[in-house]
Amino acid sequence: MSERSLFDSVSPLDFRYYGQDRALQEVLDPYVTERGRVASEAMVEAAATRVLARRGICSQAVADEVAAAVEQITPEEVAAEEARIQHNIRALVNCIQRRVSEAARPYVHFTLTSFDVVDTATAWRLKQAALRVIVPQLIELQRVLIDLARREKDTLQIGRTHGQHAVPVTFGFAIAEYVSRLGTRIERLRQAAEDMRGKISGAVGAYNASGLFFDDPVGFETEVLAELDLKPSLHSTQIVEAEYVTDYVHALISAFGVLANLADDMRNLQRTEIGEVGEAFEAQQVGSSTMPHKRNPWNFENVKSMWKAFMPRMITVYMDQISEHQRDLTNSASARFIPEVIVGLVSTTRRLHRIMSRLVTDKERMAANFALTQGMIAAEPAYILLAAHGHPDAHEAVRKLTLQAQQTGRPLGEVLFADQELQPYLAQFTEEQLAVLRDPAQYTGIAARKTELVCEYWERKLV
Amino acid sequence: MSERSLFDSVSPLDFRYYGQDRALQEVLDPYVTERGRVASEAMVEAAATRVLARRGICSQAVADEVAAAVEQITPEEVAAEEARIQHNIRALVNCIQRRVSEAARPYVHFTLTSFDVVDTATAWRLKQAALRVIVPQLIELQRVLIDLARREKDTLQIGRTHGQHAVPVTFGFAIAEYVSRLGTRIERLRQAAEDMRGKISGAVGAYNASGLFFDDPVGFETEVLAELDLKPSLHSTQIVEAEYVTDYVHALISAFGVLANLADDMRNLQRTEIGEVGEAFEAQQVGSSTMPHKRNPWNFENVKSMWKAFMPRMITVYMDQISEHQRDLTNSASARFIPEVIVGLVSTTRRLHRIMSRLVTDKERMAANFALTQGMIAAEPAYILLAAHGHPDAHEAVRKLTLQAQQTGRPLGEVLFADQELQPYLAQFTEEQLAVLRDPAQYTGIAARKTELVCEYWERKLV
Amino acid sequence: MSERSLFDSVSPLDFRYYGQDRALQEVLDPYVTERGRVASEAMVEAAATRVLARRGICSQAVADEVAAAVEQITPEEVAAEEARIQHNIRALVNCIQRRVSEAARPYVHFTLTSFDVVDTATAWRLKQAALRVIVPQLIELQRVLIDLARREKDTLQIGRTHGQHAVPVTFGFAIAEYVSRLGTRIERLRQAAEDMRGKISGAVGAYNASGLFFDDPVGFETEVLAELDLKPSLHSTQIVEAEYVTDYVHALISAFGVLANLADDMRNLQRTEIGEVGEAFEAQQVGSSTMPHKRNPWNFENVKSMWKAFMPRMITVYMDQISEHQRDLTNSASARFIPEVIVGLVSTTRRLHRIMSRLVTDKERMAANFALTQGMIAAEPAYILLAAHGHPDAHEAVRKLTLQAQQTGRPLGEVLFADQELQPYLAQFTEEQLAVLRDPAQYTGIAARKTELVCEYWERKLV
Amino acid sequence: MSERSLFDSVSPLDFRYYGQDRALQEVLDPYVTERGRVASEAMVEAAATRVLARRGICSQAVADEVAAAVEQITPEEVAAEEARIQHNIRALVNCIQRRVSEAARPYVHFTLTSFDVVDTATAWRLKQAALRVIVPQLIELQRVLIDLARREKDTLQIGRTHGQHAVPVTFGFAIAEYVSRLGTRIERLRQAAEDMRGKISGAVGAYNASGLFFDDPVGFETEVLAELDLKPSLHSTQIVEAEYVTDYVHALISAFGVLANLADDMRNLQRTEIGEVGEAFEAQQVGSSTMPHKRNPWNFENVKSMWKAFMPRMITVYMDQISEHQRDLTNSASARFIPEVIVGLVSTTRRLHRIMSRLVTDKERMAANFALTQGMIAAEPAYILLAAHGHPDAHEAVRKLTLQAQQTGRPLGEVLFADQELQPYLAQFTEEQLAVLRDPAQYTGIAARKTELVCEYWERKLV
Repeated sequence: MSERSLFDSVSPLDFRYYGQDRALQEVLDPYVTERGRVASEAMVEAAATRVLARRGICSQAVADEVAAAVEQITPEEVAAEEARIQHNIRALVNCIQRRVSEAARPYVHFTLTSFDVVDTATAWRLKQAALRVIVPQLIELQRVLIDLARREKDTLQIGRTHGQHAVPVTFGFAIAEYVSRLGTRIERLRQAAEDMRGKISGAVGAYNASGLFFDDPVGFETEVLAELDLKPSLHSTQIVEAEYVTDYVHALISAFGVLANLADDMRNLQRTEIGEVGEAFEAQQVGSSTMPHKRNPWNFENVKSMWKAFMPRMITVYMDQISEHQRDLTNSASARFIPEVIVGLVSTTRRLHRIMSRLVTDKERMAANFALTQGMIAAEPAYILLAAHGHPDAHEAVRKLTLQAQQTGRPLGEVLFADQELQPYLAQFTEEQLAVLRDPAQYTGIAARKTELVCEYWERKLV
Repeated sequence: MSERSLFDSVSPLDFRYYGQDRALQEVLDPYVTERGRVASEAMVEAAATRVLARRGICSQAVADEVAAAVEQITPEEVAAEEARIQHNIRALVNCIQRRVSEAARPYVHFTLTSFDVVDTATAWRLKQAALRVIVPQLIELQRVLIDLARREKDTLQIGRTHGQHAVPVTFGFAIAEYVSRLGTRIERLRQAAEDMRGKISGAVGAYNASGLFFDDPVGFETEVLAELDLKPSLHSTQIVEAEYVTDYVHALISAFGVLANLADDMRNLQRTEIGEVGEAFEAQQVGSSTMPHKRNPWNFENVKSMWKAFMPRMITVYMDQISEHQRDLTNSASARFIPEVIVGLVSTTRRLHRIMSRLVTDKERMAANFALTQGMIAAEPAYILLAAHGHPDAHEAVRKLTLQAQQTGRPLGEVLFADQELQPYLAQFTEEQLAVLRDPAQYTGIAARKTELVCEYWERKLV
Repeated sequence: MSERSLFDSVSPLDFRYYGQDRALQEVLDPYVTERGRVASEAMVEAAATRVLARRGICSQAVADEVAAAVEQITPEEVAAEEARIQHNIRALVNCIQRRVSEAARPYVHFTLTSFDVVDTATAWRLKQAALRVIVPQLIELQRVLIDLARREKDTLQIGRTHGQHAVPVTFGFAIAEYVSRLGTRIERLRQAAEDMRGKISGAVGAYNASGLFFDDPVGFETEVLAELDLKPSLHSTQIVEAEYVTDYVHALISAFGVLANLADDMRNLQRTEIGEVGEAFEAQQVGSSTMPHKRNPWNFENVKSMWKAFMPRMITVYMDQISEHQRDLTNSASARFIPEVIVGLVSTTRRLHRIMSRLVTDKERMAANFALTQGMIAAEPAYILLAAHGHPDAHEAVRKLTLQAQQTGRPLGEVLFADQELQPYLAQFTEEQLAVLRDPAQYTGIAARKTELVCEYWERKLV
Repeated sequence: MSERSLFDSVSPLDFRYYGQDRALQEVLDPYVTERGRVASEAMVEAAATRVLARRGICSQAVADEVAAAVEQITPEEVAAEEARIQHNIRALVNCIQRRVSEAARPYVHFTLTSFDVVDTATAWRLKQAALRVIVPQLIELQRVLIDLARREKDTLQIGRTHGQHAVPVTFGFAIAEYVSRLGTRIERLRQAAEDMRGKISGAVGAYNASGLFFDDPVGFETEVLAELDLKPSLHSTQIVEAEYVTDYVHALISAFGVLANLADDMRNLQRTEIGEVGEAFEAQQVGSSTMPHKRNPWNFENVKSMWKAFMPRMITVYMDQISEHQRDLTNSASARFIPEVIVGLVSTTRRLHRIMSRLVTDKERMAANFALTQGMIAAEPAYILLAAHGHPDAHEAVRKLTLQAQQTGRPLGEVLFADQELQPYLAQFTEEQLAVLRDPAQYTGIAARKTELVCEYWERKLV
């Protein structure tokens, strides 16, 4: 069957988003492919035998034999054996045993149950995938965002709430939002990854089998897991407590949400009527099959779309928290799909990294958009300053002025300074306060300072 | 990249549940793989040119050229072209155009927009997948269930509610539940499939381009779609109204739920303490890597697990109902994953077909389980008959008798017939009514008759 | 406890979205409140006794007594009785029995099981809620949309895909999208509602109890259900087949999605930079607590937000498809929340009705936005017409012209007509074709005609 | 409207699960009701004015006036004002202002934006709800589980995987699973609660307004939040970064999953055929309306059902991570439903506490069930010991013996000791090893020891 090509795949990951990304495959394959799965399970078997040798249950020669055999195992032979006996881990064990001497055979899978191997290997793959690939890739993106935020920290941009012009920010400040939010997600993922747990506690978690050979079966478990840089689950049944994986996937999914929000913001800023940013287009790139003038934010759209494809997978993970008694197997097939979430997230992170690295920003459009409402945004500082200087009903007074400005088409500032009733209050304003009313572009608060602060904070923590 | 093997895949569908099922691939590939996608999109282009020729816009020779070119298109060349220009449908069009004469080129993709092709091809694939593969496979399963229900229609089984013994049914009656529920799902899917819609209405759905050439662009659309056995969406934007696909996936997911429920019932009946059914085991099959005695219901567990993996995907489909204005592209990547739901469902259906076909039933265990509560289930007919014969507080009276039976360990019937207070009522019971109290195994209502009725109904409708 | 006020509620429906909407309560209360639930369950009991009398099992006087008692039942007394015996339907039965003569008591709940009552009453409430309230309310909204679409069918608006200007439509055509999509949802809901099923088949669905008294227990069931304008489930266990409710809620949720999409479009059109539509503001209304100038699309935002709150509830419904054997009770509490989806949808429909009825449209802004790209949208007809007149590489040629137009700031039409290479092709264009290139505002295809067609279709079907 | 009673509510929380639980209302009302919401928002206003006074912007008398006014605010008056002006926070501000002197009015809501108040108050409510109610209630349950685990740590129970008898555990060990898993959830929730963030950063998060009055607006923010025992969001827009609430709700939902799993285990152990545990029934309690003998695990079923109702809500929370630019309001209505998750979880925790406190366990049934398979479970230790003593194909040898035992109906131990081929290996077994084969009840590994260890660990950490 292996002669089927990429394009005979069903999964868009396999034929499109991952299957065509050689560079990513190079680092991520060991943690997300079936080949990687088999290799990591074999690695657990080798680790267990290594500890048996250390504890004198078998010789070091046996452990070496097993280690050598494990190196040679292929998913092809395991699949063939599984087709025969219909049990995947027994198939793996048989394949290893065939490659070692008769004397070594009993020490393969010795006192282990299938899910000692499966869950431990999964914990190892998820942990390594996060620490070696996902977190580094997210930090790459974080670096781009930090650079962009700093570069644009003084670039005036109208702040928008409800899609309406509110009061000004800077574009760098707007990007700093994502620096901060992505930062907490990287932290959360790192914590979840470092807390992944394995288990070598047997068929129901009570160390029934290993307890026949060791006084301290938990010690044995701890040693085997330490070989794989893992800690044991405090309690396990046939499987590790589900919550470690649950927290891990939550970290992935909630990080995905931050990327989706960033992409959504960018594609909205790219609307024809807004035009503040754009995806850089390549010379030969086609925007639309029939509308040659289109410059679609398709990469940003893709980010949102991938989030929609993967976010609901969390439901599966929550359902998989429930396993009857010492476990049922109804989480087995479903958990096999978890690596897809990793691939979806990393692939999307790289895409976002690519576009954000060469994001086109248009400061003139930002300034033009800011000017659109003719200073109407001065309404907020006007109201607040009037109130501060004792106006009894400042909000209502300014609300009426804004209606007047709208109806007459005059700038709010003009209407405001012309209003007789307000003169006693305006007379008390400081020069700086009057300046903000005359030039609302100065009303950016501490946007630039905050941008720098956020960037520094996360730079120190992560990069 | 195409030299990657099955085991370098990320998706368990690709390396495991589908990628190893040759027989299924043979029928389903055209509707679910990337190769099938490209072929179906090319087919839409050919259909459009065919209608152009029929309407005298181009010659029949041109249409023939395009048709011939379309036959030769490979996903490999389209992917290569897409890598160059970064637009998948334009890439397809370019590939077709390269294979035809200069004179024919303008009539490829003539007045079409990308999503005329994409959405129409998708509608075709989803419709055909359902009518040619999914529905037939579900009907195969339905046949097995009907046979089983009939065969076991008189087999006494205790009815269970809340996991507690309630009153009796027959095992055939229990299976008839799934005949009926699966029946409605097959119907729903068939309807949804037959109602799939395409569109040839241009970039924003207003027939802007085709309106330049046809007085009746809706007529042109209708003709092109008829070539593919599809009807047009009453209104479309750049895309077909989302609800047709939404209803279709709902039909898939709700069918999946019925399979999951059946599997759940079977694996519970297979519990060691219940043991009424079992998966047939093959001679060489291994139940557990360390517990050689285990006969696990792993296939049934797999069904439940696959349901958990795919059911939440409906959320993606619901989110994809929302597309801004004449469409945004945030449903593009996400919709590419829909064929996975088909593959998941069909693959699971075939598994269930395989196990249910050779389900092992154990009538002795059914009878033994029925006997477990020593006639306690007579409580219901006792209460009802007493009430019918005028006992003023029958429910309470019988509830107390059941407590008495439990405390003394005597069969409820014995306690009941011995009760002095009840004698006046019992004296009025008919012989049949007394028989049910004496032998609650007769208290199966019309279970057998209903089983037959349900089987006949669906057999007539579907099989 | 009933002295708690509205504001001691936990549910935003109870204290805010429904609890304050008197007019809606008047029509919807019987189907969505606890009071309505108890009343409808009592109604099932009365219907059953009525049929008993008709069949001569009890006297008409008994049926009348029960009917009279049922009218008087209050949820307060049932709750008090439930607190005592911890069984809600038995509590209801006890309350009815207390209100009738000793002779009548046995004929209350005669041969029924709790879920005969619960599921039948639920089917009745869901069906009536849809036919009497939800569908009519959706049709009210549909009417508003139809009027709006017709009124604006010739109003030029730029079509937008990916948030980018594409080719023109009319605003009426854009609204017609929602007429069509909402139409199919109303149809789907009506079908689902009309197909709701009840059951009077006893504790495990085999008519065990009723079979003791009737030769044709299905006939008895059919008669009782007919009293409530319902049909029986073809097969039932303790409960009706889950799929009828599943389809019903799918209809609700997918209708909700259409409303959310409409709201999303409107709030985007209301962006400061676009400004094509607006929510009408009342004189005293405050847009922002600190920004007196803001006119936020908060009602449209609310629609989207409510959709986000309710859409995921479908997952619960899909999980509730699974019930062990003749049923477990794990769908009992969860199904109690289904009426919330109805309330959420209807309340949101009414809000949308309110805003869409008085939607402010700004044709000048629509025209100004259309003019923004200086005729760049002529790119599509230019490419297509050039191709049709034999240009061998029209898409690429026009793509380059659009770049030229952008770089020079000249209108695309001007650049196009000045291009030497294109002259031979332009010479062949008809006058109408040239007109579209000169004035792209004419390039609206059949937008107006299609709008009328869609409105007529749904008006005939629904209104 | 407030004269509507409990039974006119739509939400099952309001009329059933919460509305009838006086004791819970007493502690939880301030954090989950509308009344509590308004009160907490008013509290933020008071805190802000308090800091203004401390910083000398207004007098202490003003702050005292505002504090006094805030105490008197009722949700009724705020709702009435909101009905007039259609803005909830402005309504609150107006109500406070009406209760203070003209001189104090400007210092109410001074420099604040609505969501400074809303999000800060929400953070306060969520944090306090967790620390004062949810965590304590979960710890109450934890205590019950610890006691139960310890009490039953030596009670032999067959371990079950796939619903099949595997190898033995103890019932206490089975409960210890939940001690451990619930423990990690309590920790996670506590962390999430302690990390809740508020914000006083104005309309777009740049401190535009407060920056007019303070050199260190972040200092002002920090002081106000400290009044409420909260820290500021590192970056905020109009709203706090969404991820703090996201993590919090994840903690709730994943805790709910542990409860659901526990309940599922218990209801399965309560199956008629298993009968190892039971819900204690009260004297007057009715199990079924027609089957007086039923003892349904309806409380455990309720726990699972509530989980099904609330778990999917996480999807809403993930969708609410996305908010356009400096925020859109599409998370406003949806976020109002978050307290329902708290109420659902706490109410369910209390129910589980109630049932688990008086769980009926049946050691005889546990022993009888253990005996069911006649020592077949010795297969695992037999295989492992044979392998350890050099048998080259121990798994296969024992697998065949189990088939032989099944076919002949003889205990596995008997068959095993009678096997000629195995004698050389058996001869090498130690006395302890032989003992396990003769009496598999001894094969519980370190179940008891591990139970104690888990209980101690969590007792130290939590209780």
